[in-house]
This record gives sequence, structure tokens and C-alpha cells, in this order.
Amino acid sequence: MAKELTLRGENYSQWYNELVVKADLAENSAVRGCMVIKPYGYAIWEKMQAELDRMFKETGHVNAYFPLFIPKSFFSKEADHVEGFAKECAVVTHYRLKNSPDGKGVVVDPDAKLEEELIVRPTSETIIWNTYKNWIQSYRDLPILCNQWANVVRWEMRTRLFLRTAEFLWQEGHTAHATKEEALEETERMVNVYADFAEQFMAVPVIKGSKSENERFAGALETYTIEALMQDGKALQSGTSHFLGQNFAKAFDVKFATKEGNEDYVWATSWGVSTRLMGALVMAHSDDNGLVLPPKLAPYQVVIVPIYRKEDQLNEINAKVDEVVKKLKARGISVKYDNSDNRKPGWKFAEYELKGVPVRLGIGPRDLENGTVEVARRDTLTKEVAQLENIDQFVADLLDDIQANIYKKAFDYRTEHTTKVENYEEFRDVLKKKGGFVLAHWDGTPETEQKIKEETKATIRCIPFDGEEEEGRCIYSGKPSKKRVLFAIAY
Amino acid sequence: MAKELTLRGENYSQWYNELVVKADLAENSAVRGCMVIKPYGYAIWEKMQAELDRMFKETGHVNAYFPLFIPKSFFSKEADHVEGFAKECAVVTHYRLKNSPDGKGVVVDPDAKLEEELIVRPTSETIIWNTYKNWIQSYRDLPILCNQWANVVRWEMRTRLFLRTAEFLWQEGHTAHATKEEALEETERMVNVYADFAEQFMAVPVIKGSKSENERFAGALETYTIEALMQDGKALQSGTSHFLGQNFAKAFDVKFATKEGNEDYVWATSWGVSTRLMGALVMAHSDDNGLVLPPKLAPYQVVIVPIYRKEDQLNEINAKVDEVVKKLKARGISVKYDNSDNRKPGWKFAEYELKGVPVRLGIGPRDLENGTVEVARRDTLTKEVAQLENIDQFVADLLDDIQANIYKKAFDYRTEHTTKVENYEEFRDVLKKKGGFVLAHWDGTPETEQKIKEETKATIRCIPFDGEEEEGRCIYSGKPSKKRVLFAIAY
Repeated sequence: MAKELTLRGENYSQWYNELVVKADLAENSAVRGCMVIKPYGYAIWEKMQAELDRMFKETGHVNAYFPLFIPKSFFSKEADHVEGFAKECAVVTHYRLKNSPDGKGVVVDPDAKLEEELIVRPTSETIIWNTYKNWIQSYRDLPILCNQWANVVRWEMRTRLFLRTAEFLWQEGHTAHATKEEALEETERMVNVYADFAEQFMAVPVIKGSKSENERFAGALETYTIEALMQDGKALQSGTSHFLGQNFAKAFDVKFATKEGNEDYVWATSWGVSTRLMGALVMAHSDDNGLVLPPKLAPYQVVIVPIYRKEDQLNEINAKVDEVVKKLKARGISVKYDNSDNRKPGWKFAEYELKGVPVRLGIGPRDLENGTVEVARRDTLTKEVAQLENIDQFVADLLDDIQANIYKKAFDYRTEHTTKVENYEEFRDVLKKKGGFVLAHWDGTPETEQKIKEETKATIRCIPFDGEEEEGRCIYSGKPSKKRVLFAIAY
Repeated sequence: MAKELTLRGENYSQWYNELVVKADLAENSAVRGCMVIKPYGYAIWEKMQAELDRMFKETGHVNAYFPLFIPKSFFSKEADHVEGFAKECAVVTHYRLKNSPDGKGVVVDPDAKLEEELIVRPTSETIIWNTYKNWIQSYRDLPILCNQWANVVRWEMRTRLFLRTAEFLWQEGHTAHATKEEALEETERMVNVYADFAEQFMAVPVIKGSKSENERFAGALETYTIEALMQDGKALQSGTSHFLGQNFAKAFDVKFATKEGNEDYVWATSWGVSTRLMGALVMAHSDDNGLVLPPKLAPYQVVIVPIYRKEDQLNEINAKVDEVVKKLKARGISVKYDNSDNRKPGWKFAEYELKGVPVRLGIGPRDLENGTVEVARRDTLTKEVAQLENIDQFVADLLDDIQANIYKKAFDYRTEHTTKVENYEEFRDVLKKKGGFVLAHWDGTPETEQKIKEETKATIRCIPFDGEEEEGRCIYSGKPSKKRVLFAIAY
């Protein structure tokens, strides 16, 4: 191995932290809790963005941009929201520095104090609904279907790269509707978009459902979520879509003239996914050798490494690889040819394994003679010899196969780690020994949920949309329940 | 007109402010100096981003992301830089709010004061070079060619939408090189990329040149710029590329082992364009009827408006337009069909004129009979009748023609408004009566430049790259000069 990695079985958490840094995805910055997303990590995020953006536009949304700063008073306008968001945040109080009187460096100029402090947005409902007020007069102005790609800041105390950082990148959709039904439809549409993205591009199977009251977004009447299972048996909330009712319209006095000639408050949704998805991607698929990337999101899908002893051999290989690269690119396959002379093939193999490149082609002098190439796939770590002639078709099929296989592996893991339990003892036992998702009956009260959380650290990840109606009794209180909910210990 | 617009001749500045708002590009937000970029404006910015991003990648650059916040002390490390940037900025001093003791709203928690204040980045040289320190050990780690798309904040006192806002969006490239020559090449490469983008996509002709010492970026040894001329005769700096020498490497102690086995400081460049380009785009081409957008950056290049009296006529038109839309889309032409029933065609015509849609097609019952369509082009406001059969080819050619014509118009305007003057009287006279670019001899001293600025408001926009060697005398001091420089009153 080029860079030694802690094994998952030894210390999963350390394995993750090391992998993110060693695979050049991200690193901690000089600013507490803020990360630097390195080019290789950012290239994956760009691919995620491109697909999501396309999906948002196909469902009728447009992008816009709203201010980074929010006046402090805006947060007090929606009672739940302020509790959820305005507490741990970055506060701008001054707008000028001046030379220090002692001649060393700069100090905050006390004369440049803002009349009202500005909060660096932790989420933009308040500033956006304050803006929408001027955009909406009549039902003809509705719906408004805006999304923004932006950075947000939440002053988290314990941070981890991608999973929980003070600053992170995300998209936040904010829509305005004339009716409750339309807003609810939108909320559902977007959680479905997120689920499709997670499954089809990230190759991460997810459970869709609604959050319990305790776990809802601050200010929402309903939060829909997609929940994914990581390889350590913990759940990761990967995207949420909120039905906000008329809460923000009331807080910011956004009314409209209805088709029927009345006046009503506007109905709202908001929905978002963030660079946290990068954490989900890493933790769902990767192994002790490094990243395993799904071909649809890999910065380059194929790496080609020449194997040679003499300069003239390299020249011959270069010429052949030129052809191969052209053929692959013509099929829309992204490829990197690494013929740098300062590293041995073995080092390169380990390096691209660490970086999760889905397919590696190795070409040596004997391959040229035989018209063959060695093909290594990252997901299974297996190798085979293929014909150079049809290599483009071969690789295209292989990439499809890898994408499907990575998904299947994660799906099978989840199936094995989803357990139905009938009582609290079983519940605790499964959490302790096996982890994963636990389907159990719950009496529907926040009190029971809170007690279970305190005693086991497990939370209700969601009330699954596709859960069956089934008579049962709450594992904690023994009270009647009609549907199982999904518990897990979560990130 | 749907929305009355001040005429350019009456009050150019007011015309601009109104146009940006009425054409739905942007508006002021509740936060002083910060704008909301509305969906139509953002769609143009997205097109700019896509082209620039492609050009950056074609020249070998990759994207990354660095923190929003910069520790205050970082700014003091480069002497010129702190003077230029650390003064008017947003300062984060606290990380928590708490409920107000009087029960009304929230207040800053005095217990949550940061040990060191954080500055919201006005530009990222300092935090990036602090990061590069860990990325660079040897010449083999170079060059680093990173770009980031980000928001930045500069606490401007007088703001104008797009042209000067407290928060704006931009890209900033930050590259690290082993040699001075390579860094200088990069600096030049990127100003050329900017010029190509401005001319080929924005249809805005620009003058490339280097900045005088007074106008250089704070911390740069050399600043290259592209300067465009607006319709009111004022110049707009539209993009800059800086050769930073070893200043930031020294400030952040970034050294590398050279190929020859020595140790040296790394050479740096940085370069950026911002949402200010939106202002340039609006002011360079638009007229008293509204925006004029170059087809290559228009959110939709064609709008189709049906003209009918009866419902069954509309049905027939809809069917025909379906075919037209398909044909246009097949050629990669973006098109909007507006058959909304709440506005008359006249209103729609004015609305899409205001929004600068390059081509408008009007189709009525008689057109269906004759197999024709009315084609209106936005740049010349002329109309003609075309055959429906080949309308896709016709429109494709027309869009090319419009793109070229808009450029030519701006180019001709600039030619007419570029004046060579031989003495200070002439100089003042041209600035007063005609405006535009003024080519004049200058003695090369900051003092003369400063005096001319104080007396006339004109500044040296650049020392043009393609200026001829020519013996002359400074218009202000009479001292000898070998080259004319470009003066103008600037935004």
C-alpha cells in the first residue's frame, strides 16, 4: 500500500477519517470546523451537483441566489425555527478592521459596530420568505420553484469531515404554492428525487419515510427523509424535504389573492442535500484498501497504467494507449493515463485503489504482442485479461456492471442488517450485537421516543412510506401501534 | 411597454438600475449592500459559469473549495494585502445567540466570543497559501492549478446591483509554480481566457493590458486586466489576473525542493471574474426598450408567441409550434413557448423585448395557412416573414448573425469612442464632451497618475499589451514617454 490505512474492523471511525484525507477528498483547515475540499473530492461533488441540478430542472425548478447574511431579528419571527437554528451560528458584529495602536497587525474597529447583527445563514427560509413577500401578490405568481447552491454555517462543536462541519456546501430548494395539496405533492416529489439520485447515482439504497415530531426540521409540519445504512451499522440521514405549511408565510406576512377572489397565506416547502452526501458515499462502499466509487460519480472511471522496463517499450505503449483513450472517450468514458516516470506500477496500483477508480487497465509489452490488456475492477479487486480490440465495449459493460454490483452489495448489506424485533430486550440486543436498522412498534409519543433514545442512543430514523399496516404493541410502553417504525443509531 | 423604463439619454445610471430590476435580473435585499439574484439573472450567470468553467478545465485547472472564514491574523502576514483588503470587511466575533432576558427575540451571547475574530473572505489568497504550505514539498508537487467558485464579501459603502455589492459571486483561481516564467505565463494565459470569454460569449470587446502600480491588486507584482467600454463612455474593469511573485509564499513560508536540489519560495498567480460581468453585459448592449442579450448567454434564445382570437385557432397553433420547438431543440437552440392566456400578444412582445430574448417568433392563423412565421430580432428591432419549413436553419443562422452584430455594434462604439490626445487640454475636453477611452502619453509616475485622477476623475485603465512604441511627452508633466496608456473614467 502506498499509504497505510486503518482497517474498518479495527476502528471504523478512524478508517473513515484517514481515508477522507489520504484519498485527497478533504482536509481540516486552519479555521475550526471548516474543511478544505480538495480537487479530487470536489470533482465528485461537482458530479453530484450536475446530476441533482439536472433533476431539479427536469422537475421545473430554477436556480437563484439569496444573501449570505440574515438580520438577527428575522430568526425570531418563526418560533420553532429560532430554537432550532439561531443558537449556534456565526455572528457578524462589525464591518471594519483598523491598524492596531501597537503597530502589530489589525484589530476590530469599535466604531464600526453594526446596528443589527448579521447571522451567517444556517439555512435560508427566513431571508427567502422575506423576499418572496414582494414576489407574490396573486395565485398567478405561484408556484415559485427556486433552488440555490450555497454555503451555510452551523457552529457545530464536534466536527467530522463531510459528516458534520461548521461550513458546508448544499442546495436548498424553497417553493411557494397556492394550496396545501400542491405543497405536499412537492415535498414528496423532492424526497423521491433524492432517493432516485442516491440509488441510481450514488448506488446507495435508501429508506423513504416521514420524521417523527422530535426529529422534524425546526418550523416544519412534516419532514420527509431518506435514510441510508453505513457499513458500521449506523444510519445516515442523507436528504430531507420539508412541508412547512403556512408557518413562514405567516411569520413574514406573505398572502396572495386566490383564484376565487379571497386572500390566503402561501404554502411552503424546503428541501436540501449537502456535502454530507460525500460522507455517505465514502462510508457506504469503501473498503480496507480505500475508496470504492460508483462509476457514475467517479472523477475518472478508468485509469491506465503502462508496465515497462525500457524507454522504447513505453513509446510503443503510449502509441497504443492513445488509441484506447480515444475510443473510450468517444463513448463518454472518462479516463486518465498515468505514464508519469517517478512512480512504479505497484505504487500506482495502490494509489488508484485508494482513490477508488472503478477500472484499471494495465498494459505491458507482452500485451501489445498479444493484443490484450489486464483489466482490474475496484469493487471486487479481481483481474482478468481482455482483448484490446473491443476494449471500449468491454469497459462500458464493465462500468455498468460495477455500478449495479456496488448497489447490490449495499442493498444486501442493508437487508441483512434490517431486523424486526418484538420487544425491548430484543431491541437492545440487536442494537448492541448487530446494529443496523431495527423495525419495531412504537406508541407514537415523543416521550417514549425520547426515553428509548436516552437508554439506547437509537432514534426513530423515519416512519417508512412503504411500511405495512400491522397491529402491534410499542416495544417500550406496550401501548397499541399500527405500524412499525425504523430505529437506528445514527450519525 | 409593459414596464416603463427611463431612457439612457435622460439618465443612464437610473436606466441601468431600473433595467436590472424590471428585467428580473436582481434586486436589493433586506441586508444592506447584498443582492438577491433572481432566476432570470441567475440563469445568465449559470451560462457564464459553464463556459468559463469549461475554459478553465481546458487550460488544465481543477476546482476546489476553501473556507469562507479567514483568521484575522492571516491578513497581517502580507503587508500590502492587509492595506487593500482587511479594512472594510465583515467580522465574525461570536458564535452563539441566546434568548433575550426580556423575552423578546435573541441577543448575542457574550460568553460565546471567539478568541480570534474571523473575517468573511474578501478574497482567498491568505487562507489558500496557508493551505498550499502543506501541499507543496517538492517541484514534483507543482504546478497547482486550482480554481474555486465562491461568494466573497467586501463592505462597500456605496453599492449598485452587480457592479458593486457587499456580497458577490465570483471565481478565484490560485496557482502555484516552480518558476517565475511559468507563473507569468499563467497570468497571461488567464487574462487571455477572460478576453476570449468576453468577446466570444458576452460579445463585449475588451482591451488587454497591465495595470499601473496604483491600480494593482494588493499584494501583486503585476496585474493584467481586461477593460470594456460601456455605452455611457465609462470603462468597466471586467476581469483581472495577478502575478503575485513570491509574496504570498514568503508570507506563509511555502518553500519547495527544486529540481536542482535547492530550496526556493513558490511563485504564485491569482485571477478572478465576478457577477460584475452581469453589469458589463447589461450596460454594453442594452437599449431603451430593455435588455439585449447575446444568444450565447441568453437563458432562452427564442420565444414563440401565438396570435389568435379563438380557442380552436390556438389549438392549431399549439400543434404547429410543437413541431417547431422540437426542430429548434434538436439543433441545441433553447426556446420558450408562451401560450399563457392571461396576457395579450402586445404585452408579451414588450416583456420579452425587456428581457432581451434574441429572437421572437409570432404565429397566427394566417401564418398557418401560408406556412410562414413572423421573425423579430431583438438587436435591431426589425421584423421579417420567414418560411416555417426551414425555420430551424433560419433561426440558427439568425442567432449567429445576432451574436456577431451585437459584438460589431459594441466594437464600433468603442472605436468611435477611443481618442488619441496630445495634450492635457484636449484630454480634459474629450473626457468632458465625448467620454470613452483616451490614449495619451504618461510619464510613468504614480504622482502624475494621482493628480490626473484628482483633477479629472480619469484613471489609467491599463497599459495596453498591443500599444505601439512611440516617442511622446506626458500630457501632464511634459516628461518623455514611450507608449500611450489607456485612460478613462471608470465604474
